[in-house]
Amino acid sequence: MQSPVALIPQLAAHIVAAGGKRLRPLLTLAAAKLAGYRDGQRHVALAACVEFIHTATLLHDDVVDESALRRGQASANALFGNKPSVLVGDFLFARAFQVMVEDGSLEVLRILSEASATIAEGEVLQLITQNDTATTEEQYLAVIEGKTAALFAAATEVGAIVAACSPAQQQGLRAYGHNLGVAFQLIDDALDYSANQAALGKTVGDDFREGKITLPVLLAFQRGDEAERAFWRRTLEEREQGEDDLARAIALMETHAAFADTVGRARDYGNAALEALAVFPDGVERRALEGIVEFCISRAR
Amino acid sequence: MQSPVALIPQLAAHIVAAGGKRLRPLLTLAAAKLAGYRDGQRHVALAACVEFIHTATLLHDDVVDESALRRGQASANALFGNKPSVLVGDFLFARAFQVMVEDGSLEVLRILSEASATIAEGEVLQLITQNDTATTEEQYLAVIEGKTAALFAAATEVGAIVAACSPAQQQGLRAYGHNLGVAFQLIDDALDYSANQAALGKTVGDDFREGKITLPVLLAFQRGDEAERAFWRRTLEEREQGEDDLARAIALMETHAAFADTVGRARDYGNAALEALAVFPDGVERRALEGIVEFCISRAR
Repeated sequence: MQSPVALIPQLAAHIVAAGGKRLRPLLTLAAAKLAGYRDGQRHVALAACVEFIHTATLLHDDVVDESALRRGQASANALFGNKPSVLVGDFLFARAFQVMVEDGSLEVLRILSEASATIAEGEVLQLITQNDTATTEEQYLAVIEGKTAALFAAATEVGAIVAACSPAQQQGLRAYGHNLGVAFQLIDDALDYSANQAALGKTVGDDFREGKITLPVLLAFQRGDEAERAFWRRTLEEREQGEDDLARAIALMETHAAFADTVGRARDYGNAALEALAVFPDGVERRALEGIVEFCISRAR
Repeated sequence: MQSPVALIPQLAAHIVAAGGKRLRPLLTLAAAKLAGYRDGQRHVALAACVEFIHTATLLHDDVVDESALRRGQASANALFGNKPSVLVGDFLFARAFQVMVEDGSLEVLRILSEASATIAEGEVLQLITQNDTATTEEQYLAVIEGKTAALFAAATEVGAIVAACSPAQQQGLRAYGHNLGVAFQLIDDALDYSANQAALGKTVGDDFREGKITLPVLLAFQRGDEAERAFWRRTLEEREQGEDDLARAIALMETHAAFADTVGRARDYGNAALEALAVFPDGVERRALEGIVEFCISRAR
């Protein structure tokens, strides 16, 4: 994060100090260990690259979404303004590539540059489907595979690369990351309508206010009658929202088991993530990655 | 620019179709030829990478500056909104790195990732010095070296890399690009207060309205009396601008030879760029690069 331009480390330090789970770099570290990497420090630098790319996307997301809060604290754009947030995001993204170049693996550069492009595609697709209740589950899945699962998959695959493990193990770690990422985002999207959300330091109802079309919405919409669909169209497409509308949205989701089924879907992806680890022997490293699946899904409780 | 997410090629095609000089990719092509690259096509793909990085920074700049025009047409942010502009910028940036990975040179990746970080630093420094008439010439120079000269230098150095020329020639091409970039930006900053600007498809007085502290401003401020300095502080720091203020700013710059001296400074950098080419024999390739220097400086006439 160092730079002679003091605002850059200041803004970057703000978002780093605000915490967060550091889940993605943890995946790189844990995947490297599971794949047999023992003596070097490459996984540490590359885990930092993964987190830098993630942080850059957070900075840009918060500008794009006009978010006021990030991890329970004032977001960087709220505190420093949109302009430095966009530019410091660019800086961190570039820095990540500098560190990868220093590491020297073209394979790592390939994986993380591809993931970066896929993230941007997922974010743009999310913009297009926003405020559109005609969005399909397939489109929704493409959004979360792009904006979330791509970096999870890259994070674990990079761990496999530094360990120089077998192609089957590399593929297993990538599949684990991908499925975990989808599960993680499904839970995130359920939490946005959940009272548990406040405990995680996020605002409840952000997705609703912005008209993001997530699986809980899609399920409630599909299963609702005409009056309910009119409610979803008014609140999410026309964005005419009254004081009680968020509560009504949550009630409709509960009526139609939209939460339970979203969490169930997350559990399916979580199980696929666990199965992908079958190419590795049981042991403390594999159990660590298995534990992350349960951690991600149990946030919804 | 291809992507299954249709908005991405649409927005990218808009900014590409709007034209521009394609000066940076041209530098990569011309530098490769001057350095002796004859048979391959690597310089074409890498020239595209340079232009993608430049386009990404333009998309983000226009969001940051809230610009309505780019190359005489509606800017992407004005036409498509800020959100897609930020995200398509991220996409093009990631794509550039994917293409570099395909090319396979870690040295090229090093040069362009470093340039990308330096550009962001220059842009942030520009934000910090904006609306501050206490900005020094040294700070101003650091801004334009970062936001402009870094990519010019990288563009020419990448041409040298594909040609695998001598270290002295590589250094010469880099120095050429750097000095040309500084000259180019000095002229750009003079043009922002010039009637010629309209002919280039840009709005006159953008920098003035935004309170950007460029060399013409710095020279007029340094050479002005107290009443004039009060004028600059009111218009650029406090951003209280009346209808006639831009005309007065231009008049003050003419009084104090701020244009002529900015162009003179550009000419000095242009000469340094020409000198840096002395490591190459005379010939059509070298004369092409020499011609670019004159082209850049003559825009101010």
